[in-house]
Amino acid sequence: MLKLLEFNEINKRDLIIELQRREEVEQSKVIDIVTEILSKVKNEGDKALINFTKEFDKVELKDLEVSQKELEECFNKVEEEFIKALQEAKINIEDYHKKQKQSGFIITKEMGVYLGQKISPLENVGVYVPGGTAAYPSSVLMNVIPAKVAGVNEIIMLTPPDKNGGINPYIGVAAKIVGVNKIYKVGGAQAIGALAYGTETIKKVDKIVGPGNIFVAIAKKLVFGNVDIDMIAGPSEILIIADEKSNPKFIAADLMSQAEHDELASSILVTTSKKLYEGVVKELEIQIKNLEREKVIRKSLECFGKTIICNDIKECIDISNLIAPEHLELMVDNPMEYLGEVKNAGSIFLGRYCPEPVGDYFGGTNHVLPTNGTARFFSPLSVDSFIKKSSFIYYSKEAIEKNGDRIITLANREGLTAHANSVKVRLE
Amino acid sequence: MLKLLEFNEINKRDLIIELQRREEVEQSKVIDIVTEILSKVKNEGDKALINFTKEFDKVELKDLEVSQKELEECFNKVEEEFIKALQEAKINIEDYHKKQKQSGFIITKEMGVYLGQKISPLENVGVYVPGGTAAYPSSVLMNVIPAKVAGVNEIIMLTPPDKNGGINPYIGVAAKIVGVNKIYKVGGAQAIGALAYGTETIKKVDKIVGPGNIFVAIAKKLVFGNVDIDMIAGPSEILIIADEKSNPKFIAADLMSQAEHDELASSILVTTSKKLYEGVVKELEIQIKNLEREKVIRKSLECFGKTIICNDIKECIDISNLIAPEHLELMVDNPMEYLGEVKNAGSIFLGRYCPEPVGDYFGGTNHVLPTNGTARFFSPLSVDSFIKKSSFIYYSKEAIEKNGDRIITLANREGLTAHANSVKVRLE
Repeated sequence: MLKLLEFNEINKRDLIIELQRREEVEQSKVIDIVTEILSKVKNEGDKALINFTKEFDKVELKDLEVSQKELEECFNKVEEEFIKALQEAKINIEDYHKKQKQSGFIITKEMGVYLGQKISPLENVGVYVPGGTAAYPSSVLMNVIPAKVAGVNEIIMLTPPDKNGGINPYIGVAAKIVGVNKIYKVGGAQAIGALAYGTETIKKVDKIVGPGNIFVAIAKKLVFGNVDIDMIAGPSEILIIADEKSNPKFIAADLMSQAEHDELASSILVTTSKKLYEGVVKELEIQIKNLEREKVIRKSLECFGKTIICNDIKECIDISNLIAPEHLELMVDNPMEYLGEVKNAGSIFLGRYCPEPVGDYFGGTNHVLPTNGTARFFSPLSVDSFIKKSSFIYYSKEAIEKNGDRIITLANREGLTAHANSVKVRLE
Repeated sequence: MLKLLEFNEINKRDLIIELQRREEVEQSKVIDIVTEILSKVKNEGDKALINFTKEFDKVELKDLEVSQKELEECFNKVEEEFIKALQEAKINIEDYHKKQKQSGFIITKEMGVYLGQKISPLENVGVYVPGGTAAYPSSVLMNVIPAKVAGVNEIIMLTPPDKNGGINPYIGVAAKIVGVNKIYKVGGAQAIGALAYGTETIKKVDKIVGPGNIFVAIAKKLVFGNVDIDMIAGPSEILIIADEKSNPKFIAADLMSQAEHDELASSILVTTSKKLYEGVVKELEIQIKNLEREKVIRKSLECFGKTIICNDIKECIDISNLIAPEHLELMVDNPMEYLGEVKNAGSIFLGRYCPEPVGDYFGGTNHVLPTNGTARFFSPLSVDSFIKKSSFIYYSKEAIEKNGDRIITLANREGLTAHANSVKVRLE
């Protein structure tokens, strides 16, 4: 199930291209549909939301907003054990994200000059949560907690109603635990339109975050600039670097934990040991039988599962840097020793007892990560995703008198005489 | 030249819509042309670059790269005074941006658990510099210095050749002073294609920054995701908050320094004093006669020049927060007192002797700023624009044994049994 490649024989460019072609989906038809939906929401507001919900979700809604009563009832529908796990996860995620908070700064100079940077939270943020089988309470935590820590004033959540016009109780509980301010039962591209333009009921936000299907993803792209968005998540991947001492059982399990997401997911083992590889292949066949999503896993591994055999760990890391995986597991002794060599990876799982789900659910780091090679330049969702910066500068009369000529020289050189003039009038 | 509005009478929603409509340009034709150009560059590499340069810039290039000799000759073509001003500006800009450098962090917990965030500079960055009258050496400084401070390994600059196949000497000098690694004579959408896909001569980069015309802007949008980009700059604006003690001469000059950029630029005075407004209008007519770009300024002020009369400074700031201007001048006593109230602004110029060109050229803050209301959620270009973050986490055997059940509960709840399995195999 895992294609076998040797480091010395692989064409690195082809390897990357093969992974990246996962993203080439036919988008043009979707764009037309989504453009139409967005324009209706912009022009007709709530009416459009109610009509689209009737059309797509087959539910006639009276109220778009989830009431306090509905929300409290969610707690009766979920297991105590789930609530406890979610609350513990919340504490860990908060601990980690609090360390990301940045402060402004100021520099003071001679002649009374000072300049600096001010940090402010975004005013309000919209979190989209998909419905159906893709309704993940963990996503609620991962998207909302960094916004809360950043100091965002109002967090609005949109999620499609179920067939009875209710909301998924697990999502409701997660939203309540992390302190979402308002929840509306709207899904799909129309939800993104509502957050981007505002309607009678739903407030326009500064930024939209959260995963979604192709309609949601395209809608986010189209409203980008009008509001900010998080990233557009592509197909995801795991890359496991493992030495010969690693347990093939663990590796097989971890590869499949990624593969179960999606047929386009990619699971890659990069190892110094061919024997390990053989052990992993055996383990895959043993373990897969007990997994609910066997079919998806098999398809994903057949298309995008790979093993690359390297001569040493250094080569393994070279491959990983090239692929820039969303998740990187480093199953080696003293994994911290290699952290400096890792250039491109969304989240790095160190040691033999830290499978990716530790980060997906519980450990504290964020699970919203750059996919499909974009860890080369994108970062995990963080507190920084929910702030904005402003610079400020003060000049005294003395300072402009001393430096004015330099500014005039540069402005004139660029042919911007009105720029030069704004300094000149102060030197007269 | 400045439309007069009263705070109590304005419809705030219409005010915003009027400013934002500046961006609605006919893009569809341009998209087709740019798509074609990008695809040619992707498939034909250098050959396409040479052909497009012949077609658009009317120059037949032998070498795309600017040689060391060509670069050194630039220094003979520019004034000593210009070089001095640029070097002083460089020091100020470096000082400011060095304060933006972030460090990674680590949190250690019980049972050997640790987790944290690692910060790495982008590997290589492409800076686009337009040709002709829009060739601004100050832009070279503002785009390159933060990348250098971030620790970017290689900075590549692309700029169109002049009609003799040379480069603008001021741009060349600026590039040399800030330490650009390689310069190529390629402009337009084809330059963006080269940086996004790479050619035989030009290396694919992780991020493209720098301003450009509509073809460049659309090309950047289209390659976004394949590489990172800075923002798409829209029409720019200044908003001046001034009390009755302010000098109308200064205000008139500052409004025009913004207006000269572009007919779509917007210049807004928000003041508590109608008398001040009347003084400004008089001053505009006096000063405009001596400015080279009189025609552009007049058009811009007629279309998007406004004065709003407020009852107090608090109201002035409310208006400013609503508009979220790229540049905000605060011409009041004790301007720092109001900094906490300013929520949305790209760069804030404090006091009566700090016109916007201080920040455009010399003071140290960056002049690449969020335009057209996007300061609500975007930030100035900064060192953060040239780094990426990775999270990391380590779990010991003991830690997974203690927390494994919680993770299994959450994974199962989401129907992801392979996720649960990756923990289970470690608990056996």
